Amino acid sequence: MTADLRQRIFAELSSLCIVDPHTHINPHAPAAGNLSELLGYHYYTELAHSAGMPKALIEEPGIDPRSKVERLVANLAPLENTIQYSWLIEILQTFADFNDQRLTPENWQQAYDTSLGRMQGHPWADHVLQTSRLQAVFLTNDFDDPLEGWDTSKYIPCLRTDDLVFHLKSPAVRDRLQAATGQSVTNRNTLTSALHALFHHFSAHQARACAISLPPDFIPTRVSAGRADIAVENLLMHGEQCSPADQRAVSHFVFWTLADFCREYDLPFDLMIGVNRGVYADGVHQGRDLYDSRVSLIQYRELFNAFPQVTFPVSVLASVTSQELASYAWIFPNVVTNGHWWYSNTPTYIEHDLAGRLEAVPQTKQIGYYSDMYKLEFALPKFNMYRRVLAKVLAERYVVDRGWSEERAVALGTTILKGNTERLFGIAPAAP
Amino acid sequence: MTADLRQRIFAELSSLCIVDPHTHINPHAPAAGNLSELLGYHYYTELAHSAGMPKALIEEPGIDPRSKVERLVANLAPLENTIQYSWLIEILQTFADFNDQRLTPENWQQAYDTSLGRMQGHPWADHVLQTSRLQAVFLTNDFDDPLEGWDTSKYIPCLRTDDLVFHLKSPAVRDRLQAATGQSVTNRNTLTSALHALFHHFSAHQARACAISLPPDFIPTRVSAGRADIAVENLLMHGEQCSPADQRAVSHFVFWTLADFCREYDLPFDLMIGVNRGVYADGVHQGRDLYDSRVSLIQYRELFNAFPQVTFPVSVLASVTSQELASYAWIFPNVVTNGHWWYSNTPTYIEHDLAGRLEAVPQTKQIGYYSDMYKLEFALPKFNMYRRVLAKVLAERYVVDRGWSEERAVALGTTILKGNTERLFGIAPAAP
Amino acid sequence: MTADLRQRIFAELSSLCIVDPHTHINPHAPAAGNLSELLGYHYYTELAHSAGMPKALIEEPGIDPRSKVERLVANLAPLENTIQYSWLIEILQTFADFNDQRLTPENWQQAYDTSLGRMQGHPWADHVLQTSRLQAVFLTNDFDDPLEGWDTSKYIPCLRTDDLVFHLKSPAVRDRLQAATGQSVTNRNTLTSALHALFHHFSAHQARACAISLPPDFIPTRVSAGRADIAVENLLMHGEQCSPADQRAVSHFVFWTLADFCREYDLPFDLMIGVNRGVYADGVHQGRDLYDSRVSLIQYRELFNAFPQVTFPVSVLASVTSQELASYAWIFPNVVTNGHWWYSNTPTYIEHDLAGRLEAVPQTKQIGYYSDMYKLEFALPKFNMYRRVLAKVLAERYVVDRGWSEERAVALGTTILKGNTERLFGIAPAAP
Repeated sequence: MTADLRQRIFAELSSLCIVDPHTHINPHAPAAGNLSELLGYHYYTELAHSAGMPKALIEEPGIDPRSKVERLVANLAPLENTIQYSWLIEILQTFADFNDQRLTPENWQQAYDTSLGRMQGHPWADHVLQTSRLQAVFLTNDFDDPLEGWDTSKYIPCLRTDDLVFHLKSPAVRDRLQAATGQSVTNRNTLTSALHALFHHFSAHQARACAISLPPDFIPTRVSAGRADIAVENLLMHGEQCSPADQRAVSHFVFWTLADFCREYDLPFDLMIGVNRGVYADGVHQGRDLYDSRVSLIQYRELFNAFPQVTFPVSVLASVTSQELASYAWIFPNVVTNGHWWYSNTPTYIEHDLAGRLEAVPQTKQIGYYSDMYKLEFALPKFNMYRRVLAKVLAERYVVDRGWSEERAVALGTTILKGNTERLFGIAPAAP
Repeated sequence: MTADLRQRIFAELSSLCIVDPHTHINPHAPAAGNLSELLGYHYYTELAHSAGMPKALIEEPGIDPRSKVERLVANLAPLENTIQYSWLIEILQTFADFNDQRLTPENWQQAYDTSLGRMQGHPWADHVLQTSRLQAVFLTNDFDDPLEGWDTSKYIPCLRTDDLVFHLKSPAVRDRLQAATGQSVTNRNTLTSALHALFHHFSAHQARACAISLPPDFIPTRVSAGRADIAVENLLMHGEQCSPADQRAVSHFVFWTLADFCREYDLPFDLMIGVNRGVYADGVHQGRDLYDSRVSLIQYRELFNAFPQVTFPVSVLASVTSQELASYAWIFPNVVTNGHWWYSNTPTYIEHDLAGRLEAVPQTKQIGYYSDMYKLEFALPKFNMYRRVLAKVLAERYVVDRGWSEERAVALGTTILKGNTERLFGIAPAAP
Repeated sequence: MTADLRQRIFAELSSLCIVDPHTHINPHAPAAGNLSELLGYHYYTELAHSAGMPKALIEEPGIDPRSKVERLVANLAPLENTIQYSWLIEILQTFADFNDQRLTPENWQQAYDTSLGRMQGHPWADHVLQTSRLQAVFLTNDFDDPLEGWDTSKYIPCLRTDDLVFHLKSPAVRDRLQAATGQSVTNRNTLTSALHALFHHFSAHQARACAISLPPDFIPTRVSAGRADIAVENLLMHGEQCSPADQRAVSHFVFWTLADFCREYDLPFDLMIGVNRGVYADGVHQGRDLYDSRVSLIQYRELFNAFPQVTFPVSVLASVTSQELASYAWIFPNVVTNGHWWYSNTPTYIEHDLAGRLEAVPQTKQIGYYSDMYKLEFALPKFNMYRRVLAKVLAERYVVDRGWSEERAVALGTTILKGNTERLFGIAPAAP
């Protein structure tokens, strides 16, 4: 019986104080203010909508938080099987004295009131961090974020670059870039200067990573200076009407330049590979994106070879790509496996993908998990889901199958869950 | 030890009276008439051929049933490991007092005689249905099937449309369409009228679904009326010599029109995605098709967005696509996961794919299983195979890993196995 | 508890005397001469390099064996989680009285000295073969190997053909071909004659297979005699400057011709599908290749149909392709599943892929495993890894899930592990 063994390993892993290396936390409002901000997480709105709840009911303008929760709760029954639903119940059990297995029209009001009382107690966010044993979380900052007004050792800046690589044809994006950097963008050189200014700004504010999400058809390549000159000039002249070829050349040029600054500023470059945006056009907010599993890391061959000094923590959307990721991290010194992203962030796929990585990628090159959360409360159930799977794999595949001692298995789990994140992103561990 | 738990959940799931939402049953001869009609199932002929049995020996014209069984039995030993072989043994054990683990040159004659006696007893098909706890089965009807001569509440019509979408260039197909509808097809409008007549006919005969199998390179798209006019005209004029571009436009036009009628007639449109026909040209009957796993549901993006009112139960051939299917069903309200098809219909792939769906797709949007059978006897072992895997996943991933009660796990299994099929296809459940 | 059951099945499978159907053994130096030749295996050098060890340190010209081991050992800690590391420890435990779980700066010298003493005892290779219960191993011979100087019943020749198919544009390759065959290659006919001479030579020296590794974009097709005439002429004229179209035509022509001689000489043609060479250009020796999982066996459709008399043992690099392989081996009589190759040769992927094959491919058409080793010592831990997974799958999916007797499960395992290799390659089994 491995149940006890799994439980013991899980308990050891749960006692660790950790860093969450990728979230969408707003540092000015890191925790939820009421239950609506938990139920408003796209997993619940998109799954309720998928199960039949009209979008208009979910996204009615001006709806008050209590009514929104009432409506969503009435549509949660079809989701009770999902792992995402279990996150919600675990949050309520941990943080709101909730004792049931289901959130229903009968019991939601008490959960609402209890959680509201807690959330409005003042050091709520810090309480959540402590209860979740979180030392710090990474943010996802727009490139023009002033990065001021919070403790950057607890809420660590990360430069998110999707807008720069894919939306520079938009005048609004270029205006934001100019406003953020004081650099007017008129050609390749001034564009490079503006990007440089961003890295200087982020680095000065303790940013520890640069990040981007990438569509499946993206194949980055080095663009010659001459070609970049022309493409940038055409993009500045034609904006949204710029030719696809010029847009692509600018995307590649900006992407390559970002990688170059990551090298110069010693920042890992998180690549989140594979998402198609807006596939379900009429979906709810943040519930429109999907993917095409026909993507390969061979598309990043030139990049990985060109920047041996840059660490690339790579996330992929589909389990099929996760085997490639394990293989590329096994061969390329600068490729690191990074968490279990989005549509692969469910126990069955985590188990398969994690086991595949543990067996073939050096233990120092695996960032076990990040929560991707928007509100702090979700770290606990999401990391617990991961820790349970990690404990299962360590118990079954290391202690049982390979005869490892329990201590050795826990040490491996600790490296994956905690040590690598600290080391690869340069975060000093908390005092024990 | 989860063995007892699995067994208890399996027993509960096995007690349910269910509907089989996709079969190839001939309603005029639903059950086997002799053992040859079981051993003649393509799984046995193609696997025996794959293991070395000459096609000429299997498909000799005019061979009598007893000799055919004798020949096949002599070539079954290489297949004894396969799950398909286990279906056969389970049928014989259930329906023919068979007590062995193998069907051999020594024992087949007794199995033949015993089963023959049973099968020729008159209410044999009903006996099989009852023993298998089958309330009804869906058929796969040619578009020109008169749909008469059987109880359509037990053998439910389903409009199969491959010929219409892919073979309209054939004069024989067009003749059949005209004969079935009384509508002479001369242009886009009359083609639409003919298709309309089919839906009227099928709907009047209690059809509960429209279905089609699709090759991996099919990317349906809306065709403008003007383009459809020209393409249909060219196809009618040139027939088999019609240009590939026009053929494709007609395919897309017909497919889109079918989806439109599914909306109008409130019929789910079963999409079975990924099959390449005739890959092994010299294979036995129905043993020639394979696939290319490089297919993506992104190809159906425009369709899923264009028909929010149509339910699309989607089947896929490869496990890699099953993760995409889980993700698309999680996001699109009109996409439903449908069974475990053909080359993914073996326990290992079912277990992986099922677990991935259960954890992320609303429980109301998963049609657990269909048998795809040609003879009624196969429902029992095929559904049992599925129920065993379902019981395993519920036991291990819900009761053990997530602390669910056994009752709650059985309830989830019941929804997947029975409730959704009834609700999504509009079938009233049998009285208890 | 299946642990005891797994152990008993493993013990039975471990008692079998087997043939290893694919290795890179040098028959003139089959076993390691010192520990450096074990640690120099690319798995250790590439993983140590991936974890940060500079290539220059690993591949310093002229470094003595003991220093090389010292350096590598200092960089092994990051690899301790990998299955490849476990092979090394198991070798040391089996062959060098090693009692630790880790090879460290503290204990490597004793391991070095002990193993050195053993390895220099004269019948070392035979001792390794006996301890590993290996009757014979297949080699990977260059086409111009004289095939003399060793016992070909123990070290079985195999004609490796990558150079012929992909590098004939190189004058050096053509010179080797001419030197090996005495046939000057001046056109299609003389090229064919030279290839014929190779088959004659290999067949006369007891070769039992022809083999090739293939990139993911290879789609073999029959080339007409006229097209081949021109392509060969252009290749002979332009060499490395030959057009890509002509190079491809020559590749296809040579490949097709090899298949034809496999038919004539009754040799299985091992296809190892999917590798991209040199992806990580600055990697260590043999640590530069990766893959693109977007490959399909549909690319081999024409080949499999054209040569029904040739057995094609097929290996694939990614688990996604392994499901296709199971399906193609289920349908095509001449397609056989072959082992678990390279990036899929780790327990998690083996377990998933093996279970998928066992359930659907005739038991006579599965070659369970080959070691791919360069030194004989690796057969034991690699086959043990496979036997443990095989025992697990047989225990869980056959004895437990399907109620098979232990004896029947062991018999199936024996067929997969031993019987098929002997039968398909025509090797007489050793006396018991």
